[in-house]
Amino acid sequence: MNIESWKSQLRKGAAELAILALLKHQSASGTGILDSLAEYPEIGLSDGSIYPLLNRLERDGRIKGVWKTPEGGGRGQKTYTISSNGDAALTDMSLVWRGFRDQLSVIIGDSK
Amino acid sequence: MNIESWKSQLRKGAAELAILALLKHQSASGTGILDSLAEYPEIGLSDGSIYPLLNRLERDGRIKGVWKTPEGGGRGQKTYTISSNGDAALTDMSLVWRGFRDQLSVIIGDSK
Repeated sequence: MNIESWKSQLRKGAAELAILALLKHQSASGTGILDSLAEYPEIGLSDGSIYPLLNRLERDGRIKGVWKTPEGGGRGQKTYTISSNGDAALTDMSLVWRGFRDQLSVIIGDSK
Repeated sequence: MNIESWKSQLRKGAAELAILALLKHQSASGTGILDSLAEYPEIGLSDGSIYPLLNRLERDGRIKGVWKTPEGGGRGQKTYTISSNGDAALTDMSLVWRGFRDQLSVIIGDSK
């Protein structure tokens, strides 16, 4: 496996957690989430990867999307909110992530 | 995706890095690696998952396995050593991991 495939595998596991954490902070559209994540390029969410993930999170009942159309007409946008189910998943996933992060950091020789 | 599947996805991306980091420290057999990782349950490597991974790392030229048979006879054991290629991969992967870890930690509200 080359480093790029490896990076993409690592990112897959984290994108869901990152999206839930952002939506916990405030509701947002897919574009809004991408804008917020622009500061965090290592997470690696892109136009191509975010929408399938948002659809899956919605199907799993972790987030809820509502279409909003601008008052003057024009193209609507789906705005996502975290559900109580998603909030519980975020708590569990954050706990797993912290344990995992701290142990892997020790293994590669960083203090945790 | 339930939390268990999510955890397993996160682990897949990290197991390779953990193995290279351990072998950088000292050569070891599969059993030796599992023993060292017993302190780090969150990484989640098991009897079932470590051998396919060691085979892949060897096929990719990142580690080299040598069969050693006990002097008095008996069952041999393959001992793995990191290659210079694996050492370079470890450096790259550690760098990616640190960036990723620090950014995801900020997103979920931990200081990095």
